[in-house]
Amino acid sequence: MKIALDALGGDFGARPNVLGALQAAKKLNLDVILVGDEAVLRQELANLGYAKEPEHISIVHAPDTIDMAAEPAKECRNKKNASIIVCANLVHKKEADAFVSAGHSGATMVAALFGLGRIKGVQRPAIATPMPTYKGVSLLLDGGANADCKPIHLLQFAVMGSAYMQKVFDIPAPSVGVLSIGEEETKGNMLVKHTVPHMREIGVNFKGTVEGRDVNTGETDVIVCDGFVGNIVLKLAEGLAKTMIAMIKREVKKRPLAILGALLSKGAFKAVKKHTNPDCYGGAPLVGVNGVAIISHGKSNDFAIFNALKTAARLVEKNFVGDIAAKMAALKPTFDNLEKEIHQENH
Amino acid sequence: MKIALDALGGDFGARPNVLGALQAAKKLNLDVILVGDEAVLRQELANLGYAKEPEHISIVHAPDTIDMAAEPAKECRNKKNASIIVCANLVHKKEADAFVSAGHSGATMVAALFGLGRIKGVQRPAIATPMPTYKGVSLLLDGGANADCKPIHLLQFAVMGSAYMQKVFDIPAPSVGVLSIGEEETKGNMLVKHTVPHMREIGVNFKGTVEGRDVNTGETDVIVCDGFVGNIVLKLAEGLAKTMIAMIKREVKKRPLAILGALLSKGAFKAVKKHTNPDCYGGAPLVGVNGVAIISHGKSNDFAIFNALKTAARLVEKNFVGDIAAKMAALKPTFDNLEKEIHQENH
Repeated sequence: MKIALDALGGDFGARPNVLGALQAAKKLNLDVILVGDEAVLRQELANLGYAKEPEHISIVHAPDTIDMAAEPAKECRNKKNASIIVCANLVHKKEADAFVSAGHSGATMVAALFGLGRIKGVQRPAIATPMPTYKGVSLLLDGGANADCKPIHLLQFAVMGSAYMQKVFDIPAPSVGVLSIGEEETKGNMLVKHTVPHMREIGVNFKGTVEGRDVNTGETDVIVCDGFVGNIVLKLAEGLAKTMIAMIKREVKKRPLAILGALLSKGAFKAVKKHTNPDCYGGAPLVGVNGVAIISHGKSNDFAIFNALKTAARLVEKNFVGDIAAKMAALKPTFDNLEKEIHQENH
Repeated sequence: MKIALDALGGDFGARPNVLGALQAAKKLNLDVILVGDEAVLRQELANLGYAKEPEHISIVHAPDTIDMAAEPAKECRNKKNASIIVCANLVHKKEADAFVSAGHSGATMVAALFGLGRIKGVQRPAIATPMPTYKGVSLLLDGGANADCKPIHLLQFAVMGSAYMQKVFDIPAPSVGVLSIGEEETKGNMLVKHTVPHMREIGVNFKGTVEGRDVNTGETDVIVCDGFVGNIVLKLAEGLAKTMIAMIKREVKKRPLAILGALLSKGAFKAVKKHTNPDCYGGAPLVGVNGVAIISHGKSNDFAIFNALKTAARLVEKNFVGDIAAKMAALKPTFDNLEKEIHQENH
């Protein structure tokens, strides 16, 4: 199996990407194509002691770089030789089975959409983000691909998210919740009110609405919301966890006994940190595009890249894209019908 | 000054309400009217050693109870003698200067709206919730009163939230952020995109958009969003903080040394808990109604009730309602104009 890696993507340049690729090649026997400026990548390999590409590793030259500040769609159209565009094209031309990028997530999304297209029947691909919870891990989607959504989009996210939790986390009938306010199904905003009544018609294991306070307890395996709310939830959770640790440290430093206490409790804190480390969960796939595309965190280290490559391989192996295509085909009459119904409810 | 208290409101019945009222009477010289079933309240006072109402405390009988599961508007219309309705009416008849309730927040909102009406020019009253941050406290609004909002609502929330931080937290020019995704002002959902360009026209100290990760660092004094997003943010922050503490405890318990360490660090954890305790911040006022109405947490203890009464008194003293009325009157031409402009942008 061959995975294309946007090898200069992310905040730390080539190093974590190349290291992650080397580990995936060694431990998983994956063929990894490093996509990016060839000279830079060769230099990085040389720095790591490789005079030429080691086994399972190849390089595809892609000299352009995406300007993070510019409009992603425009950048992707103008820069055919940007690494992320080349990655998507390798998958499109079947020269790679999947791609992974820790680069600009907006650009990755556009590249995947342009290069791979959508699975038939999918209206809006979504970023499916694994979130650590008290019980284990839940999948939140959409994590930020679509700031404004319609009920039909949320219903499709539920189908795709369930498929992902089945394939990657081996959960036979993943439970699904719609993120809302209040436990009653009559509460929520217009989007939620028009989504919830139809959740039981699409063959997912729907458990009702979940409130903000249920997100991190792991109430449901899949949590569905629009990309605006989803992105705020993800960033808030990340930020709040850091703020709490910073607050604890600030107070510990004021107390000599507490400093000793913190040293003794270090193992417990490390275990929590490990469990809540997003690097473990293999990045966030863009579900709904016609190919496997994984968005990894901009701050990905080699371990995160390794895990993203591993997830990509697993999705290919399990025929994730084919599975969603089959589900969407089977649900086509239902979705066509629902769209009419929801349209009437709104007018 | 007289404050009406929904004395049976909240999850713990009369006890924390009566205790909070007694403290406010003693420490702040506030006159508190306990509103609720008279027999129950007299019994509670007797249990606390008072044969009759102590100084500054009076009772107004209100025998009906609001059914939490029922539709708030209907309940409020049918139950004229429910404590929350009586509270709002006492303020309306000027027999009290403000009211506080830890009861059903939906019912409190409806009671305040029916009983007090809106301040002229305010389209939608909002729940303004103080949130603990790394730096201190920020005010988030709307905390859940309006699940679907228009740009004009968010703009008015910014004006009212700024006035609150000026009056209650003595911040001369509170900074204001619009909660969004991405730092660029061009990102966000349609609501945010149509709100942000007008934020500089309404005389608040606008700092741009803030991301989810900035909420708990205390980036801005006021954070504006719709009530759906706001409620999810509040509940998520509350839930995540609890989940993290539970995770740390779980790991500590597995390690004998860490148990000792946790004992030694106890003071630091207590300080963090104290700083992040929502009970300190005096409840969440419903801003925009024509009177002072404070919603306290359902799980309020006597300390939380005391602080909510204190905040209510402060808002009355500082003429918070008059201040907002003056600001809304001064901004009337601006808001009229903005409404037309935004309408045109949308069509």
